[in-house]
Amino acid sequence: MILVLKENYDKKQLENLTAWFREKNLEPHLTEGAHTTILGLIGDTSKLDIDMLESMDIVESAKRIQEPFKSANRKFHPEDTVIEIGDVKIGGGNFAVIAGPCSVESEEQLCTIAEQVKAAGAGLLRGGAFKPRTSPYAFQGLRSEGIDLLLKAKKKTGLPIVTEIMDLSHLSLFDEVDVIQVGARNMQNFELLKELGHTNKPILLKRGLSSTLQELLMSAEYIMAGGNEKVILCERGIRTFETATRNTLDISAVPLLRQLTHLPVVVDPSHATGISKLVKPMSVAAAAAGADGLMIEVHNDPSRALCDGAQSLTPEQFSDVKKAVDAVLPFASR
Amino acid sequence: MILVLKENYDKKQLENLTAWFREKNLEPHLTEGAHTTILGLIGDTSKLDIDMLESMDIVESAKRIQEPFKSANRKFHPEDTVIEIGDVKIGGGNFAVIAGPCSVESEEQLCTIAEQVKAAGAGLLRGGAFKPRTSPYAFQGLRSEGIDLLLKAKKKTGLPIVTEIMDLSHLSLFDEVDVIQVGARNMQNFELLKELGHTNKPILLKRGLSSTLQELLMSAEYIMAGGNEKVILCERGIRTFETATRNTLDISAVPLLRQLTHLPVVVDPSHATGISKLVKPMSVAAAAAGADGLMIEVHNDPSRALCDGAQSLTPEQFSDVKKAVDAVLPFASR
Amino acid sequence: MILVLKENYDKKQLENLTAWFREKNLEPHLTEGAHTTILGLIGDTSKLDIDMLESMDIVESAKRIQEPFKSANRKFHPEDTVIEIGDVKIGGGNFAVIAGPCSVESEEQLCTIAEQVKAAGAGLLRGGAFKPRTSPYAFQGLRSEGIDLLLKAKKKTGLPIVTEIMDLSHLSLFDEVDVIQVGARNMQNFELLKELGHTNKPILLKRGLSSTLQELLMSAEYIMAGGNEKVILCERGIRTFETATRNTLDISAVPLLRQLTHLPVVVDPSHATGISKLVKPMSVAAAAAGADGLMIEVHNDPSRALCDGAQSLTPEQFSDVKKAVDAVLPFASR
Amino acid sequence: MILVLKENYDKKQLENLTAWFREKNLEPHLTEGAHTTILGLIGDTSKLDIDMLESMDIVESAKRIQEPFKSANRKFHPEDTVIEIGDVKIGGGNFAVIAGPCSVESEEQLCTIAEQVKAAGAGLLRGGAFKPRTSPYAFQGLRSEGIDLLLKAKKKTGLPIVTEIMDLSHLSLFDEVDVIQVGARNMQNFELLKELGHTNKPILLKRGLSSTLQELLMSAEYIMAGGNEKVILCERGIRTFETATRNTLDISAVPLLRQLTHLPVVVDPSHATGISKLVKPMSVAAAAAGADGLMIEVHNDPSRALCDGAQSLTPEQFSDVKKAVDAVLPFASR
Repeated sequence: MILVLKENYDKKQLENLTAWFREKNLEPHLTEGAHTTILGLIGDTSKLDIDMLESMDIVESAKRIQEPFKSANRKFHPEDTVIEIGDVKIGGGNFAVIAGPCSVESEEQLCTIAEQVKAAGAGLLRGGAFKPRTSPYAFQGLRSEGIDLLLKAKKKTGLPIVTEIMDLSHLSLFDEVDVIQVGARNMQNFELLKELGHTNKPILLKRGLSSTLQELLMSAEYIMAGGNEKVILCERGIRTFETATRNTLDISAVPLLRQLTHLPVVVDPSHATGISKLVKPMSVAAAAAGADGLMIEVHNDPSRALCDGAQSLTPEQFSDVKKAVDAVLPFASR
Repeated sequence: MILVLKENYDKKQLENLTAWFREKNLEPHLTEGAHTTILGLIGDTSKLDIDMLESMDIVESAKRIQEPFKSANRKFHPEDTVIEIGDVKIGGGNFAVIAGPCSVESEEQLCTIAEQVKAAGAGLLRGGAFKPRTSPYAFQGLRSEGIDLLLKAKKKTGLPIVTEIMDLSHLSLFDEVDVIQVGARNMQNFELLKELGHTNKPILLKRGLSSTLQELLMSAEYIMAGGNEKVILCERGIRTFETATRNTLDISAVPLLRQLTHLPVVVDPSHATGISKLVKPMSVAAAAAGADGLMIEVHNDPSRALCDGAQSLTPEQFSDVKKAVDAVLPFASR
Repeated sequence: MILVLKENYDKKQLENLTAWFREKNLEPHLTEGAHTTILGLIGDTSKLDIDMLESMDIVESAKRIQEPFKSANRKFHPEDTVIEIGDVKIGGGNFAVIAGPCSVESEEQLCTIAEQVKAAGAGLLRGGAFKPRTSPYAFQGLRSEGIDLLLKAKKKTGLPIVTEIMDLSHLSLFDEVDVIQVGARNMQNFELLKELGHTNKPILLKRGLSSTLQELLMSAEYIMAGGNEKVILCERGIRTFETATRNTLDISAVPLLRQLTHLPVVVDPSHATGISKLVKPMSVAAAAAGADGLMIEVHNDPSRALCDGAQSLTPEQFSDVKKAVDAVLPFASR
Repeated sequence: MILVLKENYDKKQLENLTAWFREKNLEPHLTEGAHTTILGLIGDTSKLDIDMLESMDIVESAKRIQEPFKSANRKFHPEDTVIEIGDVKIGGGNFAVIAGPCSVESEEQLCTIAEQVKAAGAGLLRGGAFKPRTSPYAFQGLRSEGIDLLLKAKKKTGLPIVTEIMDLSHLSLFDEVDVIQVGARNMQNFELLKELGHTNKPILLKRGLSSTLQELLMSAEYIMAGGNEKVILCERGIRTFETATRNTLDISAVPLLRQLTHLPVVVDPSHATGISKLVKPMSVAAAAAGADGLMIEVHNDPSRALCDGAQSLTPEQFSDVKKAVDAVLPFASR
């Protein structure tokens, strides 16, 4: 970390500060210029609070040189993390496709889709039981009944299930869920992240609509700091000024995250774009860019889906996407 | 609401759709052109799910003409809502200043600041007990002990207290808190909002970093739909490409929200800018633009604050800001 | 187009307005509801000024149903446009790679790179003669001498050349240039676009840093309205809050533009990301998503390039990217 | 400037680099740690090309400590710049209001408005002769005839005139124009800026829709580097995800720019918001925040304005805004 000192800093305050750094096993190096004095800190600065440092009387600004995350950092864990979910692996060259409806609506709907996506090659079944909706007047999901239906579909098809948690108080309902999803709006629900760090379930952590990659990794760090290292990162589009798509899918996040972290990275082209016709090109693009998996919305009747139908594929379309992705995978940039 | 139909839409499907709308007391009007057919819907469309409509086979796109919020809508409630908190009023021409430290650190710290901000004219005391921090390694707040200290400071000074809730499971700790704050990262924590709708406490709802004003109002609607109409909206900066300030304070949100809703609107210049020197100009600007109040961070020793010191004012600076705001208030644009 | 009228609109003003629309061969349809009255316009509304309509006394808001661009619109020109540049074709299934240095620095530098990128399979040579730089103190390009060197390299290698124009007054220097590039900062330099519409040279039009796809297409429309239909669109990253990459490459723009327009779409991963290690994954992703070409920075000694070295590839790296792209192309989603 | 070196940097390359810095009168200071080596540079680094440094083999990253602008920098020019335009002064405590129509439409229209805004207290007359419009089919302005009409209105009222230049080739038409405006879309039209640096006319430089404050100051630096120090900066809203206003007015830019530079800063609330009802609250907010002036659109018949009517005020409304601003000015935060 680099601290730039104020022009007329107090020498005594600097002495106190450097003494304090030494207590924390950080070695300070001073560089004095005509107008600018710089204090470099050598050592593990990941637990220093940059806001606090910047608020000090003698400090003009502080800049990190090293990433503030450790457990998620590839520097300290060079091998890809491989997460096993039943027979499915994700990461380290294993590509997994998660598919299913936006919302769980009925046993018939869910089981039909589950069998269809399994036949088309999906490795995991997704389905929303608890649904975060912008409007209190929109369908909020079947909630605990939805989880029961997912477990039935799992029993029937053998597909492990992925579903979203919206509040800590529901955690006990997720006992038999295979992968717990943290949605974009909860990416910085730190109390939830901490508690999930004490489970031993894989967590699918979606990037917030306006979260930087560093913030996403810090949220993964919250889970990992609690002892749960099974975190799957999910790029699902960020909010920009462009209105032609629901969000802007940041595919460059895939190779960049893969450089920064050993955790697997999947892409959700359905929520990112909000347009079913874009799911195929964005799926093959994500696979080509080195993603470890995809999360795709599939509905047996998209025109009657209770939510987000506009972005869902039919099972036939999903099968077509899966084939296109499989064709590109051998040539992916990894 | 306006539905644009696809060019070769099925007449039978249209009949079914219009019948369904009529069941919902919506009157459909069809306008057919050479290339475009438009279906206008007259009636209360606030509970229609626009995503579902757009996913229908015969629908090209759907556009709302009316706002999707009702309880928060000024059209149906033209008078300003006035919220009373102890002796303090906010809204309807009553301007309130909330001040205090980012984090509650100790009884001495908190009580000292509380007395100083009271002397300077603050109407409410703020202080963080539960602290949302990007890093799991940063100070997370004194938690329930912090709330105890806030209650002590309240007893000593008489100032009502405002503090942030981070998880539903902590709600019972907030029994004697006067105003419950929902932070920017929880603005769309819908389970939390629903539960707060069943309390009768004023809720200070902060705008999310990438939330539109309509989304902010929909989150207020979640609380109000549960029966709690005491919602105070708080503009605290949005995330943009600009890096010179922590966020971009959207002061135009103030008059715009005041047109759209009857709820009071306060501004937090401390978090918005992250720079203590900008707190004064942004406070007078917000007051001039018609805000109903301000929320300002004050610390007795900003250079040693455990978090966010860079944006805190000293009590003397706060007193100076308060005077500048009082001078501008009579000339505010309301 | 849809006009929503104000609640108590003047009937006489409405009559005048509908008469005016009929004069313009637009057929107005009125839908009256309890609170909302809607005026639908059937016909070619592409030349209506939406701002002017919204400013009218009786109009609450106006919304377009149809795209405001015509010449660039795939609806009126379903076949892909194929642009021929010497022996190279771009569009309609023809994929072209444009490669070369950020800045032209010397004859030796340019000719060496030109031969290397040609050997690796590039179809066109790029090189900056006029350089838009944020700082007046940074290297501004060799200007007309740079164009002379590009022409020498063209003569030597046979590669057609692409170079950027920064001001209308330089147009005569571009007589022998094969493709004129309009940079992101000039995407809405309308006087320049109009004049380029009167040339018969292919124009490579880069998307502005904060331009929507519709604005990009409207800028293409400026060129096409002048008679020049040879416009190549270039996605080169948009400005977002993310700071880990220079810009955010919006790959979803590729399939979306291909739906909206018949013009070829190329992608510039070098400027979009600003990071050389991301050029390969983003190149294969763009190809997989259906792009018609790529524009890649190549330098024989990136560590000494006079500008933008951090994002340049060596000729060896470029050759590796070209092979990876060629492998993916047969499986692209088009 | 700080350079972070790569972990296994070549000692010989470092020697060459430090020698090169010494030639440029920069003093390098090395700080070596276990994992990180930092090279601090003391001296005037404003002319160093940060991109080039980051591309060097041994450099991991480079960070500026000092601002890259000099002529515009308040550090080297602590006094406010005061610009005189006829009898009007702007900057250094002098507040100026520029008002007039979006587009010049006719002599009658312009002269009527000019007299009305003068009567209401405007110091300068604005009016668009050359109009940048997104669509080639929208009204493009009266061009040179528009400038003639502005000069007539100037003669009649004595108000100095402000109007926008869109291309260098029109410069001779601006001989009698008092203030040349550079629009947001041309903020980085560097060839235009350079040429304006050789005139001796005040330049009103608008911030680009996605330009940082540093980029705005670098564009001012382009003009000043040519010898013309009469630059007025104009905040006019930035592009964000929010769609309720046309752009987001960044009022915090006002006090921040005033800290960074000695140049006057004005605010354009009309273009920023695009909503006439927001012009008054945003005008008083900008004045309260310390702006040196305002630029406001006024039209005698906003409902028939040929462009941007939705954001224009009537002369009566303008007079009301002017009075509200005058009332707040004595209490502005400066």
